[in-house]
Amino acid sequence: MPKYQSFQSILDNQVMVPKQLLTDYTKLGLEETELVLILQIHRYRTEGNSFPTPEELASTLTVSSQECSKILRSLIQKQLLSIEQQHNEQQVLNECYSLEPLWEKLFTYTPVNSPETPEFNE
Amino acid sequence: MPKYQSFQSILDNQVMVPKQLLTDYTKLGLEETELVLILQIHRYRTEGNSFPTPEELASTLTVSSQECSKILRSLIQKQLLSIEQQHNEQQVLNECYSLEPLWEKLFTYTPVNSPETPEFNE
Amino acid sequence: MPKYQSFQSILDNQVMVPKQLLTDYTKLGLEETELVLILQIHRYRTEGNSFPTPEELASTLTVSSQECSKILRSLIQKQLLSIEQQHNEQQVLNECYSLEPLWEKLFTYTPVNSPETPEFNE
Amino acid sequence: MPKYQSFQSILDNQVMVPKQLLTDYTKLGLEETELVLILQIHRYRTEGNSFPTPEELASTLTVSSQECSKILRSLIQKQLLSIEQQHNEQQVLNECYSLEPLWEKLFTYTPVNSPETPEFNE
Repeated sequence: MPKYQSFQSILDNQVMVPKQLLTDYTKLGLEETELVLILQIHRYRTEGNSFPTPEELASTLTVSSQECSKILRSLIQKQLLSIEQQHNEQQVLNECYSLEPLWEKLFTYTPVNSPETPEFNE
Repeated sequence: MPKYQSFQSILDNQVMVPKQLLTDYTKLGLEETELVLILQIHRYRTEGNSFPTPEELASTLTVSSQECSKILRSLIQKQLLSIEQQHNEQQVLNECYSLEPLWEKLFTYTPVNSPETPEFNE
Repeated sequence: MPKYQSFQSILDNQVMVPKQLLTDYTKLGLEETELVLILQIHRYRTEGNSFPTPEELASTLTVSSQECSKILRSLIQKQLLSIEQQHNEQQVLNECYSLEPLWEKLFTYTPVNSPETPEFNE
Repeated sequence: MPKYQSFQSILDNQVMVPKQLLTDYTKLGLEETELVLILQIHRYRTEGNSFPTPEELASTLTVSSQECSKILRSLIQKQLLSIEQQHNEQQVLNECYSLEPLWEKLFTYTPVNSPETPEFNE
């Protein structure tokens, strides 16, 4: 009989993914490999690594580190990813990826003018 | 200046994704499109649709509904996805997808070499 | 041997709680029963009930429905909870609780002026 | 106009709370202060502190550290909380709180004999 991980371990190891990322990534001009790379950046961040290398990213994807570098550049060009500078606990300046540009695009409220879904009609 | 969604709406619209799905999908023989289709099934479930059609799935992916059908069959063959029967609120028997086989594989505790449970042993 | 719920069921039944609600509720002048009532409103919302009655709330707390009514009024007075009007799927106008005032208070960015961390200096 | 935290910061700072903890804590003989102390232990854990002191716990509650100590002892007596030994990254043996006994109680599948909701009746 298989032995499972503890419930605590399962509860501890979740990432929260905005549904809109899953429903709208194609509208942002992304395809599946790019989406998964974004999810890996998001996951690494929750583990305290906010600037994973292309090699670290590639280790969890089916594509090469060269391909990961290419996708990273493309996400930055599309203004979905940025590189920020951040002080770490020792006050040393570090670079880190920020997905804030992506979240800002996803969470912008879109007024709905079309007849089909007039959700808000005050 | 852009107007953003409410914080409540952002908090309401998240899916929880086990980190191990992101770190281990390649070990399960999956590639990115298959992973994203799994995430979409998981998302649809949180929205009350536990048996999305290939067309519904394809509407959020870059691949066709034919390709989605093919991936669904492949996931069932790999014993990561199953089709279950479930009573809905009106006591009508419905089919729904279950990702339980996938979670059971991901959450199986992997003993590290020795017979007891030496979780930390180097 | 006990039989546990499915992993799917465990994954499906989580609520996301902002850490700041847990760290800062006392600074907002709240005590534990008020915090838990807020968490129950948040949970009911994820289950599709955005206007739980005092009786429904009391059924999951150790306090009476009269006490729940009193707490609800107090949260509204403290401007942490509001009652909004919302169209449901049948375009009928319904009332619902909104925790948006609470989230706005919690998520307001507090500028840090000094080198240490005097985060709150009213 | 208030300035809000980044979306990334909001997404980064959530804890996942099983709904059953919120719906069933009174059935486990707990009241609100005990529930909130459990939530704080759970939160500290996500921040890398798996053995918060009574003083650390009290700093986020309305009760004293003496009262927190008393609640901790009571949770251990009720077999909802345990103290485990764990190797940290430097291979030093540390004590940490485990909520596993609580999760096991909450996630035990309860067969339903009553007429209203016979969910599984194969």
